[in-house]
Amino acid sequence: MDNFNLLALQYQTELFGNILPFWLKHSQDREFGGYFTCLDRQGNVFDTDKFIWLQGRQVWLFSMLYNKVEKRQEWLDCAIQGAEFLKKYGHDGNFNWYFSLTREGKPLVEPYNIFSFTFAAMAFGQLSIATGNQEYADIAKRTFDNILSRRDNPKGKWNKAYPGTRPLKGFSLPMILSNLTLEIEHLLDKEIVEQTMDECIREVMEVFLRPELGGIIVENVNPNDTLSDSFNGRLVNPGHGIEAMWFIMDLGVRLNRPKLIEKATETTLKTLEYGWDKEFDGIFYFMDRKGSPLQELEWDQKLWWVHVEALISLLKGYQLTGSEESLQWFKKVHDYTWSHFKDPEYPEWWGYLNRRGEVLLDLKGGKWKGCFHVPRGLYQCWKVLEAINADKSKQLP
Amino acid sequence: MDNFNLLALQYQTELFGNILPFWLKHSQDREFGGYFTCLDRQGNVFDTDKFIWLQGRQVWLFSMLYNKVEKRQEWLDCAIQGAEFLKKYGHDGNFNWYFSLTREGKPLVEPYNIFSFTFAAMAFGQLSIATGNQEYADIAKRTFDNILSRRDNPKGKWNKAYPGTRPLKGFSLPMILSNLTLEIEHLLDKEIVEQTMDECIREVMEVFLRPELGGIIVENVNPNDTLSDSFNGRLVNPGHGIEAMWFIMDLGVRLNRPKLIEKATETTLKTLEYGWDKEFDGIFYFMDRKGSPLQELEWDQKLWWVHVEALISLLKGYQLTGSEESLQWFKKVHDYTWSHFKDPEYPEWWGYLNRRGEVLLDLKGGKWKGCFHVPRGLYQCWKVLEAINADKSKQLP
Repeated sequence: MDNFNLLALQYQTELFGNILPFWLKHSQDREFGGYFTCLDRQGNVFDTDKFIWLQGRQVWLFSMLYNKVEKRQEWLDCAIQGAEFLKKYGHDGNFNWYFSLTREGKPLVEPYNIFSFTFAAMAFGQLSIATGNQEYADIAKRTFDNILSRRDNPKGKWNKAYPGTRPLKGFSLPMILSNLTLEIEHLLDKEIVEQTMDECIREVMEVFLRPELGGIIVENVNPNDTLSDSFNGRLVNPGHGIEAMWFIMDLGVRLNRPKLIEKATETTLKTLEYGWDKEFDGIFYFMDRKGSPLQELEWDQKLWWVHVEALISLLKGYQLTGSEESLQWFKKVHDYTWSHFKDPEYPEWWGYLNRRGEVLLDLKGGKWKGCFHVPRGLYQCWKVLEAINADKSKQLP
Repeated sequence: MDNFNLLALQYQTELFGNILPFWLKHSQDREFGGYFTCLDRQGNVFDTDKFIWLQGRQVWLFSMLYNKVEKRQEWLDCAIQGAEFLKKYGHDGNFNWYFSLTREGKPLVEPYNIFSFTFAAMAFGQLSIATGNQEYADIAKRTFDNILSRRDNPKGKWNKAYPGTRPLKGFSLPMILSNLTLEIEHLLDKEIVEQTMDECIREVMEVFLRPELGGIIVENVNPNDTLSDSFNGRLVNPGHGIEAMWFIMDLGVRLNRPKLIEKATETTLKTLEYGWDKEFDGIFYFMDRKGSPLQELEWDQKLWWVHVEALISLLKGYQLTGSEESLQWFKKVHDYTWSHFKDPEYPEWWGYLNRRGEVLLDLKGGKWKGCFHVPRGLYQCWKVLEAINADKSKQLP
């Protein structure tokens, strides 16, 4: 057994022995349906609100495992009960997805957030594969149509930006669409798929990726694709940029575009070098491209998803291009991640560390951290490590 | 010269020698009017957006100094140029105040935030006293009417809360109104003043102040005045509670209600004991009344305004009640504040420190920190210390 195999086993064991049991046991609301996500260190529920991002993501995660790993009834049941809750309470009747609900399913926050829609579409798309249920497929499809129709003003009437003064466009939506389009490709017309993939690749790699900034990605640009010297226009979210790069690598594989994969691998490395904290290690949450003070007070914190996504992008970069630099960085981020985010005493990982890597919030799940980045990342790394291991030409140095 | 006199001199000197020159020199936009507030350590402008909260607060500050300290033309000119910019560009024509503008005065963010209104009313109220200009008085009065009419749904159409599910009411508005009513009393009908003062005192001291939590203040409660077990309902902002207590003490003096002043003094002390970081010193930014993890990632940071407001409430508590505990706490917070927030090398104070008291953002002004809490606090402490000093019965132990 060589090192890649050992590593694959480490990721697999953590997923099946630690993370999945935590969510299956603690998050399912057996009384009202859906999932609790506000879970303390031991898994106790500290708040019962239900956030649509996280409800959708958990449905997706268990459906995906059912589809790709094993037909475990427990996983399918978990996904279906969450989906039924979402179907019944999560939207306004026209698949405009609320942001959050009470435990019982009453709407708390209006459908202002487009990513409630994207994660609902992902959820019902995967679940439609797992179940063959046409109703789930229709929900995914209708939600995707709503996303496309809201693309130019995602917040709709809740948009507080005064029309016309500084109409920035954001990186998040094309980034998420790069992933979502592949996720629900089976439900979409071929033309829509190709057009959306092309647009997303162009936006991500040619608009938000900025050669004049050394090849990093900014969060917002002017409508004419120029840089904006404003708080939002200067914002860099290294984790976002890095996560997007494995979505782009997946598109590169799908479209057989090796140059695109090379570029995504290179961008992962540039962003990591840019976003790495040289004093305390770890990847910063937010940065300002001009080095000005940020409005985000949490800028120097170390977040779980940023590091987990970096592991995926680095491994895929190595797998697909053989980049030794990606492998070196993978080892560095792997060491930081496992030694700081994994809780040695209780299941699931920490989510929020301060700049020094000390635990900032004593939780395993909350308003934004659910059953998603950790298990998806462990799954992805496990599978990529297995594939690398199977390719005998690649061995750890 | 005894210790109170020395202390008074310390606050006065910092105000006149350090803080006011910084803002007079660096913040005034001589080309377009109004004030830059995004200023780096040395006072260089790093962003030109203009935030109505901070524009209004700076107009107020220089008007107040002109009215209460000295008729300096430079102060009045500074206030008037900011007010004229606000009058022309800050609102929609009906004194609904935008949240932010571009440097030139184009609206950037819609009038969703009620505190843009309250700080505009404060600004034009003080400036009307300084100038005797009826137009400024009318602007303050009309803005105050808008505030009262929006009281039940301050965010208006930008409110993302789904109607009816969890209609919490917030502490911030009655807190700010306790101060604003006294600020613009000269412009209001006697009945409105008395009614508003009564309501604010009741809300602050009998609704948001919770004996069952040991006498601290929560940020949000249910409409029937009960506690809400939700993220917003569990939220405690010690700085808010402490700041409100000197507003209440001012009302206690105005209404000659010594028991109210006693209660506010006691609440200041309870909140400080609750909010003080026993490990690294300083006052936490946010806390959860049940000790659950917060959604505010910046919860453990140490902010300038929290500490400055605490100094005012502690000194006023000592001045008005003779509470020795207030004096002891004042010395402790004074030492922390001066040794951590004052920049020994350049003028103005730091705004944002991490939990350990290290500088988190290398700025002197930004989107939320302007020419307000530091100079207002220095002015208030200077004046109260002078008054204590004049009262020969009170001497530092």
